[in-house]
Order: sequence, then structure tokens, then C-alpha cells
Amino acid sequence: MKFVKAEAGRPLGFREIAAGEKDGETVALKGAVHALRKLGGIDFVTLRLRDGALQCVCPPEKLPEELVEECAVEITGRVQDEVRAPGGKELAVESIRILSRPAAGMPVPISKRRLRLNLDTELSLRPVVLRALQERSVFKLQEGVGRAFREYLTAEGFTEIHTPKIVHAGAEGGSNIFRLDYFGRKAFLGQSPQFYKQTMVGVFDRVFEVAPVFRAEKHSTPRHLNEYTSLDLEMGYIDSFEDVMAVEAGFLRHCVDLLQREYADDLARLNVKLPEVEKIPQVRFDEAKRLAAEKYHRPIRDPFDLEPEEEQNIGRYFQEECGADFVFVTHYPSKKRPFYAMDDPEDPRYTLSFDLLFRGMEVTTGGQRIHDWQSQVDKMLRKGMHPEEFESYLMIHKHGMPPHGGLGLGLERFTARLCGLDNVRAACLFPRDLSRLEP
Amino acid sequence: MKFVKAEAGRPLGFREIAAGEKDGETVALKGAVHALRKLGGIDFVTLRLRDGALQCVCPPEKLPEELVEECAVEITGRVQDEVRAPGGKELAVESIRILSRPAAGMPVPISKRRLRLNLDTELSLRPVVLRALQERSVFKLQEGVGRAFREYLTAEGFTEIHTPKIVHAGAEGGSNIFRLDYFGRKAFLGQSPQFYKQTMVGVFDRVFEVAPVFRAEKHSTPRHLNEYTSLDLEMGYIDSFEDVMAVEAGFLRHCVDLLQREYADDLARLNVKLPEVEKIPQVRFDEAKRLAAEKYHRPIRDPFDLEPEEEQNIGRYFQEECGADFVFVTHYPSKKRPFYAMDDPEDPRYTLSFDLLFRGMEVTTGGQRIHDWQSQVDKMLRKGMHPEEFESYLMIHKHGMPPHGGLGLGLERFTARLCGLDNVRAACLFPRDLSRLEP
Repeated sequence: MKFVKAEAGRPLGFREIAAGEKDGETVALKGAVHALRKLGGIDFVTLRLRDGALQCVCPPEKLPEELVEECAVEITGRVQDEVRAPGGKELAVESIRILSRPAAGMPVPISKRRLRLNLDTELSLRPVVLRALQERSVFKLQEGVGRAFREYLTAEGFTEIHTPKIVHAGAEGGSNIFRLDYFGRKAFLGQSPQFYKQTMVGVFDRVFEVAPVFRAEKHSTPRHLNEYTSLDLEMGYIDSFEDVMAVEAGFLRHCVDLLQREYADDLARLNVKLPEVEKIPQVRFDEAKRLAAEKYHRPIRDPFDLEPEEEQNIGRYFQEECGADFVFVTHYPSKKRPFYAMDDPEDPRYTLSFDLLFRGMEVTTGGQRIHDWQSQVDKMLRKGMHPEEFESYLMIHKHGMPPHGGLGLGLERFTARLCGLDNVRAACLFPRDLSRLEP
Repeated sequence: MKFVKAEAGRPLGFREIAAGEKDGETVALKGAVHALRKLGGIDFVTLRLRDGALQCVCPPEKLPEELVEECAVEITGRVQDEVRAPGGKELAVESIRILSRPAAGMPVPISKRRLRLNLDTELSLRPVVLRALQERSVFKLQEGVGRAFREYLTAEGFTEIHTPKIVHAGAEGGSNIFRLDYFGRKAFLGQSPQFYKQTMVGVFDRVFEVAPVFRAEKHSTPRHLNEYTSLDLEMGYIDSFEDVMAVEAGFLRHCVDLLQREYADDLARLNVKLPEVEKIPQVRFDEAKRLAAEKYHRPIRDPFDLEPEEEQNIGRYFQEECGADFVFVTHYPSKKRPFYAMDDPEDPRYTLSFDLLFRGMEVTTGGQRIHDWQSQVDKMLRKGMHPEEFESYLMIHKHGMPPHGGLGLGLERFTARLCGLDNVRAACLFPRDLSRLEP
């Protein structure tokens, strides 16, 4: 009987070489030919590995004639110091074995430092343009943000859950919901895991989910996607919505630590300055509006709404006044929050809720939820909703829920702010918008 | 200016108490009243915490009159030894503060050891029935499987990705695909992240994704869900599909280790015997069919298909012959595999592919993919497909792809096999099937 060997083994990468672990050794590396420069006396192959790009110097007689860029190859050679090479090391090639060849050359020169494509062209060519090192670094950092979220919450006693995306009712209301034919029945794509994560607070006390959400927004802006990855958490036994903000602040610290520790190459490649997370100011919605309006001489048009430009100004205000990259804006108006938001007992025109602004843009919405059944039913009725349509959601309130709250963080928006990208599409591998359904 | 304190702090849980860390101390714990028994001279409150249930003994005069099951409470008391209590500890109650009250009693007695509900009733009441300890343990173990997958792959140099679920074409073909109106255009829900994960191999060499997939299967069986969580991986620079199997075997080992180390309470509560992962047999598809047919006297009806009963018999065969819980069955027939599967050059009626059976049921499908552009176009044409409809997918082959392969693992099916549940719905928080769209 034949048995499977466990573990293929992690292949040698760029980092071990840059760290000097293989100095003077002959190693075999598999990767793609990222760039090929024939300089007459000597040829240069840039070998793209999963975690960096290694300069390889090759005498012309050892360079296979059929070698072109984007060939997959195995290169054997000796690791040596070279101050002019990225990472300070290069490979003196002994042999190159071709594993596969492209059928055509790349549509754009991805090994250039700056591609300068317009976003639309870039998105159409994404499947191959992502091979550019600066492109993929964005998504490596995005991975780091997701890892930090899960690592931090798991350590804080949260349980990860997986909840359905095909739903019978939207959680956020409004018309921005995708409809679906579900075996002849009307169904929708989840706008958020709101009902389910609240439900699971009754089970595990503290839960989180990392999953796609769908918003059928009919306008095209640099800050909206029709499908995005939402980092959601929900927690019970809170004293106040400020407990939820404290968890988010703890996550942000852990995130910056993790990125600094394990994603230094990608941060450097993109020139990312990590945000300040030690002191995050919090300010009431009405106060924030007033401060920004006064300082930047922009009159308040609607006291119960926050325009994108006001958001930017609030971010700018706290950046200038106390060097803050993040601001928690609290007590949003009730009419702008969904039916499950808990009103402030001291002034029910406002809710016990918050947004987190990151360099002037909202990246999180959160707050305390109504846990009492009667209060929830009453608020639904006040909003003109039909509680009987939400029977399985209200079941949790009926049979008892602890005081609880939570938040949702948009991963792509967060990544875009982190990397200084103007358009959220640049921080989404394969964005979906009004006109874009592929790749 | 007011600043947010970072970290709410992980609340005290059952584990610290069971581990003896608080012996003799007076502690305050927040949780739900899981069970309440008034025995005259003394009252017992079972306090449900996120990680266990703690017995609390309460003199009747300290028990609030309005206390009922599923109240959220804060209980202060002294931790003491009690051999008859779960975990060997109990709390001698000093005070109970009620944080919230249910509007109605629970529809089923969730503190009973066995609920004995039929699955349909249980699923309808899931939002509250999940509060039963044996129910939630299933999903705690499910969390462990997901954690193990990500931890293991991250350590092996894989990058996590997030890819769109609204797609313009299905990856797996067939009619089991959900249709969607996307701003007036026809769109679909992704049957798998196949195209995208292959694409990302060209970028990061090794990638994984944990995300929902959607299958509009029009039949109702105990092994199918219309939406499930797929653990997907894809890796480049393989020598053979056996490299992919080796990674899966490595993951299985890590998974069993992690569950043993951190999920012992849940394993014990559900009486789960962890599977054997040290020696996993591998056998060819045709050979597996022959062995099972001979041993169990069940003639082979179709040499190119595997019926559920044959799958069970193959599982049983290797269980009996070598104590195996898992079997890799390799070289599936080409006509049963999608267009991207690589045919075996030695016999193109079969593919370089595998399924993993877990206690007699398929939980993984994987294999080597075609990386050469011309070969992929040719195979599409042979299958009657139109390559021009897959332009953005074929872009990766055109511009060069390394030899690569991968797999998808169904999280709910895996959990069901692990926990010995007959119906996969029991291992899905809120399952979707032909008749079920809520909760």
C-alpha cells in the first residue's frame, strides 16, 4: 500500500537569501523570469519569487536561447554579495531549466518601477499586471490586515463564524441590494452579516467573520465597491459602545505591530508610513462637524448628515491638531442609522454608535445594538417596518440577548487608506462596480 | 481632547477557572443563565460562558426573584472545588446582577444533554438552539479547522486572497449555478474561486482563500448544501499533483494537533475521536473501485463514475485494511473533471487529480491544472466550449503560468465527518437548501 508523504516543504524564498542564510551556498530556486536584460558580456535575470525578486547574473552561454520573460524556471546558482542588487545578494547562475513558456509577451512591462497605466486599463489587465512587485505588495499588506484582525480577536476570546450570503431579507435596508432567483423564490445577497453575528453573540458571546458583502450601489465613486470584504465583529456583555471602540483600537495596534514585524519589504516598496495608533481621539458627531466647520470656514448644511468633504476636514482637523491618523466620531444621528442601532437615552435623536475615520475617510461603522425585544419591535414599527418579516431575527431578542455591540471594517478601503491609494478599486484584486464584472 | 483606551480586555472565562487559576478568589463573571434549578434549600445557576458552563450555588435569598433562564447576568462569587461540577469547580454566589431579561421562555430546553429534535425543527430554531453546549461545540471545532488551514498554509509561504463571488462565468460548468441581475447584465454566483486562485498563483506562487461558494444543486441530499464554505488552495512550481496531496496531508496533521491542543473540551463534549493522519493511503481510482467491488461483492456499474455507496465502501475498505480514516483516491476519469484539469499523459482518459475521502465521503477535490495556453485552448474546444468567452482567464496561460495545482475542501462536510454527523446541514450554522432560505 502506498502512503502520502506529509508536507511538500516550504520552498526557499527571497527572504532567507536576503537574510544571508544561504551565503556562499549553491541553491536551486523556482520562480518566474520577471525581467531579462542581455548586456552582451553578461546577462541579468530577475527571478520573481513569492516574497521578493532576486537578481541573477548569467554568462551568455548558460542562458537558454528560448528563455523569455514570464518563463517559469528553476535556476541553480551560488549566492553571493552584491551591494547594487535588491536585498544585497545575487545569484551567480550555474544552470537554468525552463519549466514552462508563455505563448505571448506581456501586454505591459511589469518590471518597470512605475507602470503609469490608467486604472481602467490596469483593471482589465489585472490577472497579469498584479505580477508587478508594487501591485502585489498592496495585497500582501491586505493579507497582513486580515491576519491581524483574526489573530487579535482570537486571542481576545472571539470565535470565528461563517454565515450565509444568500438571505431572505437585507439587514441594512434601502434599495442597494442584489436580487436573486433562488429556486423560484425571491432572495437577496447579504449587505452585511448583521443579523447572524448578533445571533451568534447569544451563542459564543464574542464572534467575528471575514467574508464578502454585497451592495448594489447605483453610483460610481472612488470609495465604493459593489462587493467587498467585510471584517465584522460583534460582542456581548458590553457596558457601552466604547468597549467596541476599545477592541478596534487594540486591533489597530496589533495590526501596525504585525505589519512592521513581518511585512517590512512591502511597506518599504510602497513607501507606506504606518499610521499613529497609540492615541486615537474620539469626538461627538455634532462637535466634530462644528470644529471642522469653524476651522475650515465651511458652513454646516445639514446637522444630521456628514458629507465626504466634511469627513475629510474632520480627518484633517485631528491630523493637524494632534497628529492623528484615526478619529472615532461618535453619536451619529438616529435617522442615519439602521433599525437595530440603540438610541442614546439622553437624546434619542442620536445613537450610541461610531464611525472610524482613517486619514479622512470612514472605514468602520459600529455601535451598540438594541437587545431588548420590546424596544426592538417598537423601533421597527416607528421606522414603518413589519416585525413579522423578521421573525427569525427577533427570536434572539425574544429569548434573551445580552447588551451587545459590534462593527464592520471594509478591508479594501482600509488597505487603500493604508497604502495611500486614491481609488478603493486599486485595493481590491478584482473589483466589481457598475460597469465591471470581469476579470 | 478625549482618547480611546485600547483593548477592552479579554473577560474571564470558564477555562481559567477550571484550570484552577482563580481558586479561592472572589470573581465577577458575565454570562447567560443556561439553567436554573431551585432545590429549596439551595439554588443552582448554570452560567453559560463563551468557553464553557460554570455551576454556581446560590442561597435562595441571594437569587433575584425575576431571574429566569437566558437572563444575561453578572455573578460575583467565590471559586471553590466541587468534584461533582463540570470542570471540578463551582462558584459560591455572593450576588447576581441582571443585565437583560428575555421576553419569553426558550422554545426547547437547551440545557438538556440530548435535545432529540428532528433536524427540520432544529434548523428553524437554530438562532437559539445553537446556545446548547453540544450544538455550539460543533462550530467551535469548525473554527479550529479553519484556523488550522490558515495557520498551516501561512507558515508554508501561502498568501491569503479575497476574490469576487459575483462572476461573469462559472468555473465548474453545468447548470448548478445561481443567476443574478447585475445592473441589467446577467451575472452568476461563483461555484468556486478556481479561475482567481489560479490567476493568483502567477502573482504569489502559493495562495489560499476561505470563502463561500454557491451551487444551485436541484436535489436535496444529506451531503449537499447550496452555499458552503470552501477552503481553497492553489500552488505553483509543483512536480506533480502529489505535491498538492502532501500539503493537504500536512494540513491534516496540523489540524489534529491544534484541535487536540486547544479544543479538548469540545472534542470531549461531542465524543469526537480524532482521525488517524500519520499514514494516509493513496490509491488509483480504478484500483479503488476494484478493491471495494471485490471485497464487498458489489459489481462495478460504471468504470468512469463513483457512486456514493462505492465511496463509502472504499472508505470502509481502507478503514478495515489499515485503520485509515482518510484515503486519497487519484486519477479520476477525464470526463468527470472540469476543463482545466490536466490529463494524464500516460492515459488521457484519466486526469492527474485526486479526491480525499474522509470516513467514506469525499471532502476534497484537487489536482494538477493545465498551465500551457495551447493545451488549455485545445481542451476547451474538445469540450465544446468557446475560449473567447474566457479571455481574462486565458490571459494568465497566454502570458505564462508555472506548473500548478490545488484543491478545495468543504468546511461543513469536513466538520460533519469529524463530528460524526450524518447530515452536512448539522455542521452549517444556517444552511441553505432547496426549501430553506432562513434563518
